[in-house]
Amino acid sequence: MRVQTTMLDEWGKLLITGWNKAGWMAKSTQLGDRIAGLVGAPDGSVIVGDTLTIKVYQALSAALEMRPERRVILSDNGNFPTDLYMAQGLIGTLDKGYSLKVVAPEDVAGAIDETVAVVMLTEVDYQSARKHDMAALTAAAHAAGALTVWDLAHSAGALPVDLTGTGADFAVGCTYKYLNGGPGAPAFIYVTPHLQNAVRPALSGWLGHEAPFAFDLDYRPDTGINRMRIGTPPVLAMAALEAALDIWEGVDMAELRSESIALSELFIGLVDRRCPTVTLASPRNPATRGAHVALRHPEGYAIMQALIARDVIGDFRAPDVMRFGFTPMYLEPNNIHHAVDVLAEILDNRLWDRPEYRKKAAVT
Amino acid sequence: MRVQTTMLDEWGKLLITGWNKAGWMAKSTQLGDRIAGLVGAPDGSVIVGDTLTIKVYQALSAALEMRPERRVILSDNGNFPTDLYMAQGLIGTLDKGYSLKVVAPEDVAGAIDETVAVVMLTEVDYQSARKHDMAALTAAAHAAGALTVWDLAHSAGALPVDLTGTGADFAVGCTYKYLNGGPGAPAFIYVTPHLQNAVRPALSGWLGHEAPFAFDLDYRPDTGINRMRIGTPPVLAMAALEAALDIWEGVDMAELRSESIALSELFIGLVDRRCPTVTLASPRNPATRGAHVALRHPEGYAIMQALIARDVIGDFRAPDVMRFGFTPMYLEPNNIHHAVDVLAEILDNRLWDRPEYRKKAAVT
Repeated sequence: MRVQTTMLDEWGKLLITGWNKAGWMAKSTQLGDRIAGLVGAPDGSVIVGDTLTIKVYQALSAALEMRPERRVILSDNGNFPTDLYMAQGLIGTLDKGYSLKVVAPEDVAGAIDETVAVVMLTEVDYQSARKHDMAALTAAAHAAGALTVWDLAHSAGALPVDLTGTGADFAVGCTYKYLNGGPGAPAFIYVTPHLQNAVRPALSGWLGHEAPFAFDLDYRPDTGINRMRIGTPPVLAMAALEAALDIWEGVDMAELRSESIALSELFIGLVDRRCPTVTLASPRNPATRGAHVALRHPEGYAIMQALIARDVIGDFRAPDVMRFGFTPMYLEPNNIHHAVDVLAEILDNRLWDRPEYRKKAAVT
Repeated sequence: MRVQTTMLDEWGKLLITGWNKAGWMAKSTQLGDRIAGLVGAPDGSVIVGDTLTIKVYQALSAALEMRPERRVILSDNGNFPTDLYMAQGLIGTLDKGYSLKVVAPEDVAGAIDETVAVVMLTEVDYQSARKHDMAALTAAAHAAGALTVWDLAHSAGALPVDLTGTGADFAVGCTYKYLNGGPGAPAFIYVTPHLQNAVRPALSGWLGHEAPFAFDLDYRPDTGINRMRIGTPPVLAMAALEAALDIWEGVDMAELRSESIALSELFIGLVDRRCPTVTLASPRNPATRGAHVALRHPEGYAIMQALIARDVIGDFRAPDVMRFGFTPMYLEPNNIHHAVDVLAEILDNRLWDRPEYRKKAAVT
């Protein structure tokens, strides 16, 4: 409905005057402030726009320039590939001897030394749901003089995040997973307040300018988080996101987290008993696990297709991982029992072994 | 309706399976091919996504790397500021002695020499509608060994563009002006086929990867225009754009151009006679003018507010320019007569001189 209002009443009637009259231009910061409330950040520290991939580039390039004497970006092999790719692309652009050092997740802490400019990590692993200790790793980075870029793609709306408390420098995230902004919904970026005005935006678009509508020929960054704006904001997508964020008003993230853990513990317990041919690919300790659970099976792809055909919708990540999300806002214990019933039936009777389930789609 | 279908039937029912089942992942290239048809480009040379600002950065960084021995980006002071800002941001990132040389539009041809790596221009000036000769300037650039980046923001859907015929190397554009994609609709980028596989993407996001869903740790660009994809595509915005592009099926751009010129000539003629206090800020020769007409008046801001209050909707560009678009798909001579009637009445009776029209909004 919000999208329809935006299209028919605002776009349809106001045309370009909607930028003022319908408040389109202010949405990036308004939605940013609402997301800030969900990730432990103050007003004025988060802004919405672009894709997570672009926001990674913004954060990483800004952070690197703040540590000009250092040449190492440290990340781990559990990071989502686009984060690593953007680091590689940026390094190629800079062409100054930078390197991306990718270690195993458990080796990150030990690899932080005084050559590291930036520690760039995804808090919750997109496959296994293994959860990094953001506070400890941020403290370790700071102790070595490095900055941090945290990717919250599988954290925001999934579990409590305390950007202020952990001292994170930069963070980025998407809104199309747990925040339900819709397919391809815009991303967000956080910059800790004391660093905001030290950022030189590499992607210095007109909407990050101090006076975008003065149409000066020279770029002058706006103050604060606004300088992380780039181009014209996606109004329709922001309308969908705005409606999606309404349901988060008044949600207690600690309570949501404990319900989410209860659901995932129930799921893991049932799978342990009833599905002996799958293995758990997520940490057993819920304190070090995000809000999804990954199971491994050599026929994971076909099994997931068989599940989807029965309206149990998770997703598959090559080569053999099935992911299941646990969002207490939409799921209750009955759904978990049902999902495991269906999974057990598929496994026990090899119902996945049908050509239509084994045929891979272009996108999995 | 297309957006509603995408939201309710696709997103609402298919959830993440919509990426395959509803063909979301293929939209960026499908819509690119449709836009290609409107700008004289072959299939497989245009892709949709992100904002025009980001696409400028992609094109410019790729072009600069193709001329590694040169250090000058040549542009003009009629270029839209975000293009200049992105060049400045990129130069700051590269930090290798690059410079952005900004000359007057009429001096561009004479400034192209063998120090120039890239000539970056907007074909139709966003303010005055002055139109560059894309073919001649591209030929001059190539003769000097430089590449071209053309911004088609005020060209695509406004007048015939022949990217293939002019030999343009890179082009970018937005879809929210003449293509009616909606506020903040996604942008597009063109790369001439013979250069596509030579591009090193600076913004090397996962969807430009050869195999995004293999989740490799190292970036390998896809072949062709696909490597200009960056992050997850904006599905809802693409649904709106898809519907908007339907109306362009079968449109003859040459015919549209001659109707657009007829409307703008009518407008200029009527304004000349009836509105002596405004001056024409666009070229008089329609062959060197885009599809909008700019008028200048010291009280342009208040006059535009008075026009908008009377449902004659143009826009204002500081310090004193009023812009009026001429799209034959929506306008006919009657509308032009009416618009000039209203404008003349406002000017003759100083109806603009009211506090509510003079109060500037944040966005103008």
